[in-house]
Amino acid sequence: VTPDLRRLRERLAEISDLRRTLLLLSWEQRVTMPPGGTEARANALATLGRTEHERFVDAEIGHLLERLRPYEESLEYDSDDASLIRVVRRDWEKARREPSELRAERLRAGSLAHGVWVEARATNDFARFLPALERNFDIRKRYAACFEWEDSPYTPLLDDFEPFMTTTDVAAVFDVLRPALAEIVRNAPRIDASFLDVPFAHDRQRVFAERLASTVGLDEDAWRLDTSAHPFCTSFSRRDVRMTTRFMDTGLRALWSTLHESGHALYAHGVAPSLERTPLAGSPSLGLNESQSRTWENLVGRSRPFWSHWYEPLQRTFPDELGDVGFETFMSAVNCVQPTALRGRADETTYSLHIILRFDLERRVLEETLEPRDLPQAWNEGMQELLGVEVPDDAQGVLQDTHWASCQIGYFPTYALGNVISLQIWSVVREAIPDLDDQLEAGELLELSGWLRDGLYSLGRKLTPSETIERLTGSPAIDPQPFLAYLRAKAAALA
Amino acid sequence: VTPDLRRLRERLAEISDLRRTLLLLSWEQRVTMPPGGTEARANALATLGRTEHERFVDAEIGHLLERLRPYEESLEYDSDDASLIRVVRRDWEKARREPSELRAERLRAGSLAHGVWVEARATNDFARFLPALERNFDIRKRYAACFEWEDSPYTPLLDDFEPFMTTTDVAAVFDVLRPALAEIVRNAPRIDASFLDVPFAHDRQRVFAERLASTVGLDEDAWRLDTSAHPFCTSFSRRDVRMTTRFMDTGLRALWSTLHESGHALYAHGVAPSLERTPLAGSPSLGLNESQSRTWENLVGRSRPFWSHWYEPLQRTFPDELGDVGFETFMSAVNCVQPTALRGRADETTYSLHIILRFDLERRVLEETLEPRDLPQAWNEGMQELLGVEVPDDAQGVLQDTHWASCQIGYFPTYALGNVISLQIWSVVREAIPDLDDQLEAGELLELSGWLRDGLYSLGRKLTPSETIERLTGSPAIDPQPFLAYLRAKAAALA
Repeated sequence: VTPDLRRLRERLAEISDLRRTLLLLSWEQRVTMPPGGTEARANALATLGRTEHERFVDAEIGHLLERLRPYEESLEYDSDDASLIRVVRRDWEKARREPSELRAERLRAGSLAHGVWVEARATNDFARFLPALERNFDIRKRYAACFEWEDSPYTPLLDDFEPFMTTTDVAAVFDVLRPALAEIVRNAPRIDASFLDVPFAHDRQRVFAERLASTVGLDEDAWRLDTSAHPFCTSFSRRDVRMTTRFMDTGLRALWSTLHESGHALYAHGVAPSLERTPLAGSPSLGLNESQSRTWENLVGRSRPFWSHWYEPLQRTFPDELGDVGFETFMSAVNCVQPTALRGRADETTYSLHIILRFDLERRVLEETLEPRDLPQAWNEGMQELLGVEVPDDAQGVLQDTHWASCQIGYFPTYALGNVISLQIWSVVREAIPDLDDQLEAGELLELSGWLRDGLYSLGRKLTPSETIERLTGSPAIDPQPFLAYLRAKAAALA
Repeated sequence: VTPDLRRLRERLAEISDLRRTLLLLSWEQRVTMPPGGTEARANALATLGRTEHERFVDAEIGHLLERLRPYEESLEYDSDDASLIRVVRRDWEKARREPSELRAERLRAGSLAHGVWVEARATNDFARFLPALERNFDIRKRYAACFEWEDSPYTPLLDDFEPFMTTTDVAAVFDVLRPALAEIVRNAPRIDASFLDVPFAHDRQRVFAERLASTVGLDEDAWRLDTSAHPFCTSFSRRDVRMTTRFMDTGLRALWSTLHESGHALYAHGVAPSLERTPLAGSPSLGLNESQSRTWENLVGRSRPFWSHWYEPLQRTFPDELGDVGFETFMSAVNCVQPTALRGRADETTYSLHIILRFDLERRVLEETLEPRDLPQAWNEGMQELLGVEVPDDAQGVLQDTHWASCQIGYFPTYALGNVISLQIWSVVREAIPDLDDQLEAGELLELSGWLRDGLYSLGRKLTPSETIERLTGSPAIDPQPFLAYLRAKAAALA
């Protein structure tokens, strides 16, 4: 190890500690913090964020990266060291464009707005949220202005979550999805799933959700499951992974939300130990990360073999609610196509249409063809157009998501991209594990999570999203066709 | 406001954010973190601690403090600004002596040792804990060596928790306490309190403890109560205060432990808003802080008027355990003198003898007349000598406390000093609120907590410990006599 590399690794380890601490401040705000702590937390996030950013964009890191070029070129492309130098160089060049003060302002604003959003949603009061929303969009516009872009000011924002993709690239995928999904929705049979629309005791849901999560392949002393207003997953190291879920008045949505977060958790948990405390400990893009949450939520968690193992235990847990509900009825209900106002309750087909709406809207605000104050109307019109759904109120409309409150603008498209990518990877998994269905029927998930860990999660951020997809599937492109074929087959099976 | 003052306040606000974040990392480790997170947490603490320390000892802060001398001298001594400049100057001069790397090492070692301690205590395995303990004492010896001291290398450590006091000062107070307490113990009547030595349902204890805590005067959205291996209180702002308690196999100790932490919580909550985000948001010494936890735990929480309000609700909460226990029997049991091996179960009289033992031992290790490996034997001998107690095993002996594991060496004496100071302040409170007993009988605690807030908590760290005590009582000295008189009167009332 050269002294330059040692020095770079030391500095990146400290920066990594600061970044994980930022995640902890944010996790804690959402999970345990009393409301009185809001203002101090916003200050702490701003100070930590500024400190982390100042350290990272420091000229010394640039010098080290430059001096390490010959060493990088002497190594295998996907070696840990070459990948570290290459990926950090791109991160560093991008981060240098943003003033540390703007970063601090975004963290402070996102933290304060989160508290406002929780209250505004609870009271169905968009006007109360609007000033914070306007400030957040303004902060992100100023961020976009730090960069040159070709197609849209939305692209630099998108790039934070989906590196190397442009707004045009995303729009091209969504232009395929939009009509195809609408057609599947139109032709899908209507299923009566009202037996799920009743209260299920939260404590028993929690026990069952933890039981499911404990089987996916996480070390038992390395994770926990809490509740929050909006389910999410974060990690402070590969051995300290935090999932949250949310228990609703009716239904069992928390079970699939837990499986969803388990996919994110497995990704964080599966990163190679050699990448710990480096910026490579993560995933190449949120789309790839989401492909795994959707794999565990849907491809595993709505499948017939999975539930042929788990449905009896679920019936025993909720005998009054499910004792008389047959397996086929349950399977149809958890796989039906049913437009709804809430993304958090959407089925696999309509889900991406919710995302396309959000992408269109946030892109238009960035491109200044839509004002934040007009978002509720545009939202409701879009829901009508894309899904034929009447939005009952803003709490179940424009206020339903936490992302804009948290200043995470440009994040939404990664959800639909994740759906698409999940099927590209799933085809390979199916070939690699021919008896997967038998394993799922036996409640065995460890070969699946082990294969995904070794083939995908362990790579961390070493490769670009396209390189990662190519390594797994043989092709670098994001291809919506396997996803659409999967949905069409499911809808046909329901008929 | 001069530009220098504005600049100083900005820098101190950021340093304050970093310090509160360090407290959050530590709280979270003790309350929610999965065991797998230990190593990453130690790294994060070390990085944050180094960052905070480097920022604070920066030469610019010294220049600002120097340039602000004339401004400071133009102000009232106890004004916010003059106090800030004066107190930070002393903090800065002391912090400059310690290398940032040593600070980081202490935080890392304390965090790692905490996990080892939890396991060693659970398995009664001192040998497992010894290497961490030796490292912690070594780190603190190296810290002491950064300072000049006159009486003992223990003094610079003590000064971190009890500023301006020397080892000799503490020993002088303890030399009065030791024989006087031993005499009270010898003469106290034996009380049968075995009815408390049975299991009490933890969930009902928790509800009752939260009910008590909700009456002391904390804003309802500004605190929470959790559980941890060792009860403690910390705060991330005056409106975000965290208490923990611990539910034991038998007894109701968690109720008094919650009242104890409520006293710390009220202190943090009562600091003047103008001191927020400055190093003055705190207490002048841990002794003064502890005087308040002991006030709420003992002077309020073991008093006859307090329980004449709360005993009936407690009986209704635990009808099987307490339904047949009369009020007088209960009062005698919660006020009896009964030597025990565990500090956490000690009564008000024997408690300070536990502290004197710990002070003697840690001081001897610092002065190198005792080796850490010989602590168990010295502990057991001291318990026999001071309290006549046979220590059953190391888990209930030398391993019972978290402080040495957390590298908090020099902290223990503040507990006994707190006992002493609590009575000095209590005498003044009694005069200021003549009908206090009537209020306690009515379950009314707000005038008491309001008076203490306005007279004490709101001052924060503006004055020295002695100045603070003098402002309240008219005399700067720490005087053990009111405390001893109180204990003698209680013991006499039991006879």
